[in-house]
Amino acid sequence: MSTSQMKAAVWHKARDLRVETVAIPELRGPHDVRIKVAACGICGSDLHEYAAGPIFVPVGTPHPISGDMAPIIMGHEFAGEVVAVGDAVTRVKPGDRVAIEPILSPNRDGAYVLERYNLSPELGFHGLSGGGGGFSEYTVVGEHMVHVMPDDLSWEQGALVEPAAVALHAVRQSSLRAGDTAAVFGAGPIGLMVIEALKAAGAAQIYAVELSAVRRAKAAALGAVGLDPAAGDVVAQITAQTGGGVDFAFEVTGIPEVLGQCINATHPGGEIVVVSIWEGEASFNPNDLVIKERTMRGIIAYRHVYPAVMALMQRGFFRAEDLVTDRIGLDDVVAQGFDRLLADKSQIKILVQLQA
Amino acid sequence: MSTSQMKAAVWHKARDLRVETVAIPELRGPHDVRIKVAACGICGSDLHEYAAGPIFVPVGTPHPISGDMAPIIMGHEFAGEVVAVGDAVTRVKPGDRVAIEPILSPNRDGAYVLERYNLSPELGFHGLSGGGGGFSEYTVVGEHMVHVMPDDLSWEQGALVEPAAVALHAVRQSSLRAGDTAAVFGAGPIGLMVIEALKAAGAAQIYAVELSAVRRAKAAALGAVGLDPAAGDVVAQITAQTGGGVDFAFEVTGIPEVLGQCINATHPGGEIVVVSIWEGEASFNPNDLVIKERTMRGIIAYRHVYPAVMALMQRGFFRAEDLVTDRIGLDDVVAQGFDRLLADKSQIKILVQLQA
Repeated sequence: MSTSQMKAAVWHKARDLRVETVAIPELRGPHDVRIKVAACGICGSDLHEYAAGPIFVPVGTPHPISGDMAPIIMGHEFAGEVVAVGDAVTRVKPGDRVAIEPILSPNRDGAYVLERYNLSPELGFHGLSGGGGGFSEYTVVGEHMVHVMPDDLSWEQGALVEPAAVALHAVRQSSLRAGDTAAVFGAGPIGLMVIEALKAAGAAQIYAVELSAVRRAKAAALGAVGLDPAAGDVVAQITAQTGGGVDFAFEVTGIPEVLGQCINATHPGGEIVVVSIWEGEASFNPNDLVIKERTMRGIIAYRHVYPAVMALMQRGFFRAEDLVTDRIGLDDVVAQGFDRLLADKSQIKILVQLQA
Repeated sequence: MSTSQMKAAVWHKARDLRVETVAIPELRGPHDVRIKVAACGICGSDLHEYAAGPIFVPVGTPHPISGDMAPIIMGHEFAGEVVAVGDAVTRVKPGDRVAIEPILSPNRDGAYVLERYNLSPELGFHGLSGGGGGFSEYTVVGEHMVHVMPDDLSWEQGALVEPAAVALHAVRQSSLRAGDTAAVFGAGPIGLMVIEALKAAGAAQIYAVELSAVRRAKAAALGAVGLDPAAGDVVAQITAQTGGGVDFAFEVTGIPEVLGQCINATHPGGEIVVVSIWEGEASFNPNDLVIKERTMRGIIAYRHVYPAVMALMQRGFFRAEDLVTDRIGLDDVVAQGFDRLLADKSQIKILVQLQA
């Protein structure tokens, strides 16, 4: 491998993810930043693209912002060291440790154009929609996508900022206040992060509804009350234990049958936040919203929350020790990463380590 | 008919509504008020009970608050004169003209117990859930259910306070601010009232989506832009005319196929208010909420808005001239009221007049 080459995990099509030797990417504009990746997490979205994609991966037509299409390098939950910057870059300098906000959205002069840049019709993600990704030794992003990390946050914490940002955005978009109660349906990586965000927001009591015993135990270890939907009527249990329902419920499964449970776990006037991406339609009874005056809101990704996530990490939330269940090398990303996560629910977050 | 008897329209079962001679109701407690009904509107809920009930009508088991079950007197949109009061009544006196708030919800000492009394599990309606109703010469209600009308509001306006309260509550429960845009799906009586409430709230532009040409024309006469869903893609039209979607959409049809249109008529970050009562499940794509970060909320009936509705009526909103399409006598309520409303979409609100 020459000095201008590197290894990267490249998505060719569903079930065809390969670690290949590719060219180290060049800076393409004055606001570009080259990152030497330190750690990159495997996300549920990555698994979807691998198991049943393409979903976000552009195939046949280039993504309007990345200009790229499959095959593409994957990985969007990552942190690393700045190793080169374009002439106009002011936010970072070589040597800075940064967490990458991978949202592709219209940008100009090193900044996002839209205030709500996560709601652009051109929404994409670096590492899913082309332009490079975090499962590689180096990648190039715009300076609007990098956030300098506090010195006391590890690379592992840096790789967790992205999923933690989803969870914090979900809780911030709700009207939850300190002292409120909440239920989280689904205790996978994002569900567990939502539990952490709820703790940060001062939730008085948190219920975690999850089929997997090991994930329920994880949720309990984080301070939630684990409930097994296979062992009884979780809506009835939550209603009884809260005297009428939780204030907030977070849907983090994407399973149509769960949506109605999630709605009915809240009391009259309660609020449901839908965090999942769905594979298709779901049926529910609108009267469950109407007659109880409930509110249901959707959220996608995050905006303007990376600095807050990192500050909360400094205060002890979203701890890598609680969420990372294994660390692997890039060469092992398929067998020890993707394949294992699809088969083994005891795995929560697996990180690909590229620097110590 | 003796002096202790009166006429009333009594629901026996679906398609069996009879004008009968019944006893004039007595005061049952110290906070009771007897009303000589002046005018009572026929509501969509009344039509549902008549065409396909029981829905709210208690059959076989008494309603927990009214203690009553079918056969029951119908009519819940009414105003009239106070003709007798219990010993403890302080809010009104004989001779007062009042609009009746027909919500049955736990009450004590002449007041509702719950702050959000429309969200009680025991929610019912005087005129749907037993205890008497407005399609009769006299009826008895608790003093917590009466609101003195300003002198300059007619009996007809008084009978419109109830449906206008639904519409005003829907708009008040949304986060709409003056200058926002809105679409109303369904321009029946409540949809038209929602248009009035939106005007009162300062909506800058209002679209009304309605199949019936005569109802579209009515909506247009109130100031909305009428759109015919049979003539083209209304979501595309609204998106084009607003440059991306309305700020708010109100669902007032209860038709499952309309729900997705209503959601997608709003821009990213938009809000949907579901006003309809539904007959069963509806299917939608949760991604339409998630990826656009939309909010969907339900509302039921109203609370604490009767005085505000009457004040807005004094300012010229919710005008009987715009909404009442016919006036009939009690003897004609079935043939000229219920049967005609089910058959003829050019009828909006038909009032039963009991006093001049």
